[in-house]
Amino acid sequence: MSNAADTLLDDDEGLPRNLVAQVVDAVAAGDKSQLDALLDPLHPADIADLLEQIDERGRASLLALWKGGMDGDILSELGDDLREEVIDALGPRELAEAIRDLESDDVVDLVEDLGDDQQEQVLDALGDVDRMAVEKALAYPEESAGRLMQMEVVRAPSHWTVGEAIDYLRASDDLPEQFYHLILVDPRMKPVGYVTLGRLLGTPRAIHLTELLEPSFRTFRVDQDEEDVAYAFNQYHLISAPVVDEDDRLVGVITIDDAMIVLDEEHEEDILRLAGVDGESSLTDKVIATTKRRFPWLAVNLVTAILASMIISLFEETIAGLVALAVLMPIVASMGGNAGTQSLTVAVRSMATKDLTGANVWRVIRREVLVGLVNGVAFAVIMGIVGYIWFGEPMLGVVIALAMVINLVVAGLAGTAIPVLLEKVGIDPALASGAFVTTVTDVVGFFAFLGLAAVMLL
Amino acid sequence: MSNAADTLLDDDEGLPRNLVAQVVDAVAAGDKSQLDALLDPLHPADIADLLEQIDERGRASLLALWKGGMDGDILSELGDDLREEVIDALGPRELAEAIRDLESDDVVDLVEDLGDDQQEQVLDALGDVDRMAVEKALAYPEESAGRLMQMEVVRAPSHWTVGEAIDYLRASDDLPEQFYHLILVDPRMKPVGYVTLGRLLGTPRAIHLTELLEPSFRTFRVDQDEEDVAYAFNQYHLISAPVVDEDDRLVGVITIDDAMIVLDEEHEEDILRLAGVDGESSLTDKVIATTKRRFPWLAVNLVTAILASMIISLFEETIAGLVALAVLMPIVASMGGNAGTQSLTVAVRSMATKDLTGANVWRVIRREVLVGLVNGVAFAVIMGIVGYIWFGEPMLGVVIALAMVINLVVAGLAGTAIPVLLEKVGIDPALASGAFVTTVTDVVGFFAFLGLAAVMLL
Repeated sequence: MSNAADTLLDDDEGLPRNLVAQVVDAVAAGDKSQLDALLDPLHPADIADLLEQIDERGRASLLALWKGGMDGDILSELGDDLREEVIDALGPRELAEAIRDLESDDVVDLVEDLGDDQQEQVLDALGDVDRMAVEKALAYPEESAGRLMQMEVVRAPSHWTVGEAIDYLRASDDLPEQFYHLILVDPRMKPVGYVTLGRLLGTPRAIHLTELLEPSFRTFRVDQDEEDVAYAFNQYHLISAPVVDEDDRLVGVITIDDAMIVLDEEHEEDILRLAGVDGESSLTDKVIATTKRRFPWLAVNLVTAILASMIISLFEETIAGLVALAVLMPIVASMGGNAGTQSLTVAVRSMATKDLTGANVWRVIRREVLVGLVNGVAFAVIMGIVGYIWFGEPMLGVVIALAMVINLVVAGLAGTAIPVLLEKVGIDPALASGAFVTTVTDVVGFFAFLGLAAVMLL
Repeated sequence: MSNAADTLLDDDEGLPRNLVAQVVDAVAAGDKSQLDALLDPLHPADIADLLEQIDERGRASLLALWKGGMDGDILSELGDDLREEVIDALGPRELAEAIRDLESDDVVDLVEDLGDDQQEQVLDALGDVDRMAVEKALAYPEESAGRLMQMEVVRAPSHWTVGEAIDYLRASDDLPEQFYHLILVDPRMKPVGYVTLGRLLGTPRAIHLTELLEPSFRTFRVDQDEEDVAYAFNQYHLISAPVVDEDDRLVGVITIDDAMIVLDEEHEEDILRLAGVDGESSLTDKVIATTKRRFPWLAVNLVTAILASMIISLFEETIAGLVALAVLMPIVASMGGNAGTQSLTVAVRSMATKDLTGANVWRVIRREVLVGLVNGVAFAVIMGIVGYIWFGEPMLGVVIALAMVINLVVAGLAGTAIPVLLEKVGIDPALASGAFVTTVTDVVGFFAFLGLAAVMLL
């Protein structure tokens, strides 16, 4: 296939080019051995991506032809909507087969966003021990450290030596697939520090473990927000960290790959929210679901726009007197909206990374106002000249220049102060700041421009 | 201090409340022992954050009072602007002292964005061996795997047994501080797989290492883009991965914490670019630097806004005939701009995560157009009624309703097609899509509304 659109994906990573087309061809031809040959070498994450890139009918045919190929790792990698679709297509026996080899924290991740029916279906497919572990994890609050952690921990009494620890590890026959630290606990099971496996391997047997503790050690509470956990992993460069219950007893461990996924999701959510797209949107969502998800923000924007129109209607007579005003008036509002969006995005991101705090909020507001003032003056000069040349009326240039300075200063102020205030009253600034800031810059932009025109021109 | 603004930071992670104020007080009082007592327990990342939250004068006093306290880890955590300021304040001897204990990849990270003078200053402060390692790394292209990797690798011949590997590790006295895998190499130093330390510890001595290989193994080329590396770590849940030169020989290893930092930076950059803020902006940037950085996007927006105004000026007579048009006309353009931003943000993010490719681009465009159509009809009905009630003119309602449908369909189309086209011609869609999409929705919005009004109303 030499479809030009395929060149979109010409990086070194990701699915090889043409693969999707080859898979679709194999499915259309009903060629199971060709399909197996194409899919078998792929990583589960890539198979999941591939499933997301073909349409619903193609996906159904693929799953029917590929019977028995689906496994739990692929299910884990699918977006929520698609995961439900695929689980429905599998049927109970194939589902049980698919999830048999998943670890309990992967099953939790797999089922926590499923509907009740499907969740029950998956739990039924588990053995009793696994089912109990999964149900225990599901009892923790959503988006908490408890949901994120794995319950299998590798621990040792804090009084042990390196030799005792190595002998213990070598005698264990059920070590987790991935672990990076040996967690030291006191007799009450409270974690007191950890030792990296590398350090353990490189140290003489007689040394006490307490001499090898890593300075990066910190613990999380089981009910702590996963967002806090991800922040700390990023801020302190953690690789793994123990999780404790309300009595400070070790109940699990979170590793950096889990934290990385949370960080990635938070980022994604922030980007989409800043653009007025709330909820986890994916490309496989249906038209109606997507429409509903986009509607509320557009409705808020409609109210904002009507508000701005009401300001304009205050000046109908002014505009009737000089129609050039109608031509120029969107410029000031638009510049204010863009400058405000710049300020608010910087503010929202700085709050997310905890760089904008009570200690520097006034300094940041002052800076944003000054930036608005300087850019406002620059664009006032440009637009004043443009306005004068275009309409041959010097005072029109003065009016638009003054309105520009006012609105860009207001944009800097509103763009910083509004997200900070929203955060203080407990509203997500990424989601709501845009509407508020744009309302302010629209209202101020139209009012300043038309109001000054009414006073100075007519 | 009971400043209400301090409650901004009431999460469980991050700097404790009031700490910044206490530090500022200690510096103002010249109380070095109090300053040490406040700063000593902090993680270098938190000290860096704290330095970013106080003003320039306060920072200079703090550094003067805290003489000898600064270390390389704190320097590494500082943003670029602040890092240059602090290095200037330190002076050569204190700088040499501070970076003495950094590993070579940390020094690379520290100096790669410094000016030539400061880079030379830091390199001079290093020992000969370290300096050579750093200069070698700096010879790799910027933002490549070579810059990201650490050169210290732990490797073993692929024919070894577990026992041989453990004996080798136990005899080594210069193992890296953090490592998670033992990399197996063939006689030509080509990496052929890796074994986790946990697996090594839990397996009988006689077993061959080749029986313990992890399926997640993959290598990166030294000149590969760090963005590709970060994508692969995220997609395939890697913890560490070997880096090879053009002859496939092992030259370094990248760990997940490095990849996590890159992913975080890429995200940040995308968010800011989508809002028209290009370049690494930080809260400590000066007013003039920030103003310059924001200016270009506002200038692009001014051109866009003037274009829209030129469309309006085509209809000056129409507006003079019915001033209500001037009142209502920003609504359609504004709704289109917002709907277009929603579509483009989803498209830009999907391209960044390689979910939007040649295989599904037409399906996504069709979906976005349909979403625009459905929402367009919904808002057409609402706005048609509002327009009729407000101005008592049924045809005005019809005009705004039709224009709304047209502009929201165009927004869906432009919001998806424009970022895809920009990517194809090699322009960063996160940076440029906004301006193009808004131009389209403004022009179409004003033209459709005023044009239909000219035809149907007058």
